[in-house]
Parts: sequence; structure tokens; C-alpha cells
Amino acid sequence: MHVLILGAAGMVGRKLVDQLCEAGSVAGREITAMTVVDVIEPESPAADKHAVNWAVSTAAADISVRSEVDALIAHKPDIIFNLAAIVSGEAETDFDKGYAVNLNGSHNLFEAIRQQNYRPKVVFTSSIAVFGAPFPDAIDDEFLSAPLTSYGVQKACSELLLMDYSRKGFIDGIAIRLPTVVIRPGKPNKAASGFFSNILREPLNGQEAVLPVSLDVRHWMASPKRSAGFLIHAANLDTNRLGARRALSMPGIPVTVGEMIEALERVAGPERAALIRHEPDETITRIVDGWPRNFNTSRALELGFTADNSMDEIIRIYIEEELGGQLG
Amino acid sequence: MHVLILGAAGMVGRKLVDQLCEAGSVAGREITAMTVVDVIEPESPAADKHAVNWAVSTAAADISVRSEVDALIAHKPDIIFNLAAIVSGEAETDFDKGYAVNLNGSHNLFEAIRQQNYRPKVVFTSSIAVFGAPFPDAIDDEFLSAPLTSYGVQKACSELLLMDYSRKGFIDGIAIRLPTVVIRPGKPNKAASGFFSNILREPLNGQEAVLPVSLDVRHWMASPKRSAGFLIHAANLDTNRLGARRALSMPGIPVTVGEMIEALERVAGPERAALIRHEPDETITRIVDGWPRNFNTSRALELGFTADNSMDEIIRIYIEEELGGQLG
Repeated sequence: MHVLILGAAGMVGRKLVDQLCEAGSVAGREITAMTVVDVIEPESPAADKHAVNWAVSTAAADISVRSEVDALIAHKPDIIFNLAAIVSGEAETDFDKGYAVNLNGSHNLFEAIRQQNYRPKVVFTSSIAVFGAPFPDAIDDEFLSAPLTSYGVQKACSELLLMDYSRKGFIDGIAIRLPTVVIRPGKPNKAASGFFSNILREPLNGQEAVLPVSLDVRHWMASPKRSAGFLIHAANLDTNRLGARRALSMPGIPVTVGEMIEALERVAGPERAALIRHEPDETITRIVDGWPRNFNTSRALELGFTADNSMDEIIRIYIEEELGGQLG
Repeated sequence: MHVLILGAAGMVGRKLVDQLCEAGSVAGREITAMTVVDVIEPESPAADKHAVNWAVSTAAADISVRSEVDALIAHKPDIIFNLAAIVSGEAETDFDKGYAVNLNGSHNLFEAIRQQNYRPKVVFTSSIAVFGAPFPDAIDDEFLSAPLTSYGVQKACSELLLMDYSRKGFIDGIAIRLPTVVIRPGKPNKAASGFFSNILREPLNGQEAVLPVSLDVRHWMASPKRSAGFLIHAANLDTNRLGARRALSMPGIPVTVGEMIEALERVAGPERAALIRHEPDETITRIVDGWPRNFNTSRALELGFTADNSMDEIIRIYIEEELGGQLG
């Protein structure tokens, strides 16, 4: 089984590589080769993470360039995970780049496969950003994609292409709509959604954090570890169980910002939670109001996808995986 | 007011040109120039149909070729109607051509406008083919686009692009999802939906027709005249009334095949209806079962779009417009 991972250097991509290396198999077959790709060549997974008889190749490729995708697909990988994307904030400010990577990149991948005339499994990382307000109480898999960002439109169009190429038998695709992934490691960024991670990560690292919205703002969350797990479960899944509708919203945890802070207090203590400073920001509040917050993911649950157990668990996962088990 | 019509030589395109010429104005302003375009240069509308002071230009252009779209948009038309499309059946058999015209063609148009840095009204002809089974009892504007044809995917993606380019202020777009348009003039064709027109047109012309499905098959219909009227109403509409969701399913007439034949009998007499021969076709029946059949178009109705009055009226429109008022 040859596995190709596009966007392997990102937050979820790295978890995915690690989990696949650890498992040693996917879709019921042993992994015999893995190619990990990002726009800048990713590091090879640590040698102790995978059996020595594996061939792990690393490569740099820009999926917006068709010839670079063709070169990767020429090897006819059996399973392709596509996590490569320009993030929401950048896709909004750099319109051309967002479309080039997030839409044309997907289309390039599907076309490259079609030209090779074989039918690999393709697991596409989509997002709940395909939905836009106004929302019903809980968004189910029959609710329309009416995104309010360019990123969301690019993901929604990619899903539609994936379904058409699958229906025609060119690929065997599945699109996984990830919840907002927390806790994002690294430094605070200016993305409107950044605060969801910041208000947990910074206090866990012993730093102050700013909360720009009110405590009752509700959102839909999953850990990076669980998100990578969703993609692997999708790769293992018999897509005949999906019918024609191959895009699935993933089970997340619905939590308010207030509940996130309570979880932080339980796991890391009140002095950490006290590092959060409330500075309401009208612009961010308005943007976040346009985001989906609650889902009915019964279809995904029936197919065996399961959410993180709790926000407490998400915080513990961060402490274990990113802080070596110790508060910073 | 300079009006550009892409796909002007088609069934609805020709009605649109005629109706605009007759009205002499659109969106509250006088028409001063009109450019009518199709992949083969369309005929100029009859001189008696429009005021002599108008400049009507005709042109051949392939919207899948960006430079040809650029040349049309260089004149900065104020209102652009895009009806240019590869039809459903051909988009299914010629995968590349369908994507080139129906998806890349739309994208070329939006990009050409963006590069000219102005904000025209764009009325895009979409289709109820953006929907795929299974359906609720009545499809409302919150039901997802999950098309079961390449044509439907190309239309759904074009709608999403139209909404994003509108949100960003590059165009002022509206997408009109037309019902199945009957009675299509011309000869019987092999499109799966062809029989909806054939069973009316052929008897009206004094010819036999074959009905491949059962009498209780239900569908959603509009006349060519009404369909062109929808596009003009869309051009006249203040899009601020739409919010972010700029795709509207149009009010049609929900009729069964049995009711269509009863209407034919009322309008043209039982001897015409007797020209229909029932030859059940399993393949066509299966395809038609996947099509949407009933809608809740309250949103469009509130915005002033109105359906044809009855199937009888649709038949009378055909007799008047295509047969010069006399049965063939």
C-alpha cells in the first residue's frame, strides 16, 4: 500500500503521518511506501516511528501547478490524503492564491488521477467553513453549503468535484469536514478563529491570552489527534456505505468559550485560567457570529466516526503531545 | 444600458433577446446597446423587434477560452446574462467539454470582469439539476446541492463562485435555477428529459410521440417564455434583497405526465392526445427517478417571480409562439 500525503507539514498532516507510521497499515493493508509532501519539503518522520522496511520519501510540490501533481500521481499511490490548503484568513486576503491552491489544486489532483486511469482512494480535508449563516439549530448533512468566505467556497466546490469524479469512477473520494481544530500549537496568529486556541494554549504555556468574544459564544471543536484519526477512519471506510453524498461533517464537541475556560481551570488550575484577559472585539465577534456552531452528525456517528470525549481531554492531549506532559 | 447575452442562440436565449428588444429597457434604464453572443454567431434580432437607434452587435465566442471572454468584457457591459452551456446529456458524455464551458466558462467570465475592475449585474442561468435524490417532499432554498450529473456539479460550482465574487464586490450576481423548460421546439432528441417536450410537441405538430415513463411521474416545469421572464426579473431585482444566498429555485408548475396529457387533450383535442404511445423504458425511468420533482419556492415568490399559470397555458404559448397560432 503506497500512501501519498499532500499538506503533510501542517498541524493535522503531521499527526496523520505519525499515526499512520504507528499503525503500519491502512484500509486493511500494510503500508509499504509513503510519500509526504508539502509546499516546502517536510521532514521525514522520525526513524523510530516506522518499520525500517518502509520507503518514506519526502518531496516539495505546489498542487496549484498541474505538472507537479502529475509527477506525484505518476507513481499511482493507492491512497491519497489531501490536506494541502491556504488557510481561511490568507484565502480571504489573497484571492488568487486561495483559488489556485484550494480549488485548482483539488481539480489538478482529480484530473491527474483521471489521466493515469486508475481509481485510488482520495481522502479530502474539507471544513465546516462550507456552511454560512443563517443556520438551523443543528446543521445536518442535508443543509446547504452557502459559505461566507472564499476558503469555504473553495472547499465546497472541491467537494462537488470529488463527488462527480467519484460518481464517474475516476476516483474513490470522501470529503471530511473538520470542526475547528484546537489546540493549534505555535504562536498566536491573527486569524479570527485564533483565539479559540490562544485562550487555552497561552495559559498552558504560562502566558497571558486575550479573549475577544463573550463567554457564551459557542463553537464546534476537535483535537488535532482526533482530526487525523477522522482521516484515517475515512481511508478505512467502505465508501459504498456513503451513497452519492460523499461529504461528511465530523462529530465535534459543542462548547461555549465559558465552558472551555472551565475545562482549562479543571485540568490546569485556576491560576492558569486567570491568565485570560477579556477584551471584546466587535469585528471578531461579528465574524464569529457567521460561523456554524452546532451539528447533527448522526450520519458520521453511524459510520463509526467519534468525537473527542471532552474539552478536558482536548486540553490533556495538548499537554501530552506538545508540552511533553508538563505545563509550560 | 449595454446588455451582453451569452448563449443567445439557445431556446431561452432567443426568447430573452426578443423580450428585451420588446421592452426596450431593463433594470429601470433604457437599453442603448446589446451584444448577442453564442458559440456560433447568432442571427441579429428582427429589425421590427427593436428601436432603430439601438446598436445590436452579434458575435461568436467560446466562453471556455479566456481571451474571447476578455474581448467581450472589455466593452464593460452593464448587465450580463450568461445562458451559455453544454446541455446535461452532452456534459455527461463529454466530460472535458462540460467542465470547460459550464465551469471554466463561468469562472472565465467572473475573472474577466474582476480584471476590468467594475461591478456589472450578472444573471446566471442555473438549473434544478443542482439537486440530486434523495429529496424531501418539497425542496426549499436551504436544501443542499448534491447533483447526480456533471452538468449539475458544474452549475452548483458556478453558483458558489458567483456568490463569492459577489460577496467580494467583484460582480453583482444572481443565479436563477430554471425548472425543466417545456415545450422545447425542434426535433425529438435523445436527452432523457426529451420526452417531457416530445409528448406535447409532436402531437401538436400532428406526429406520434413515445412516452417512456408511467403517467404518475411528476416534474417541475416552466415555459421558455416564462424562463426568459425570470431572467429579466432577476436583472431588475435589487440583489440587496437576497442576502448572501444568491441562487434561487424558480417557481414552476408541478405536474404529472398524466396531467400533461390531460392538458393536451383540453387544449388540442383527444385525437392529438391519442398520438402518444406508451412504451415504458427502464433506463429513462431510473434516470428520471433521480430528478427533483417538487419545490417550495416561497423565497422566489416573495421576490416577485411567478410561475406559468397552468400546463394549458404552456401548451397555448407553444402554439402561439412556435406554430403561429395553428395546430400543425
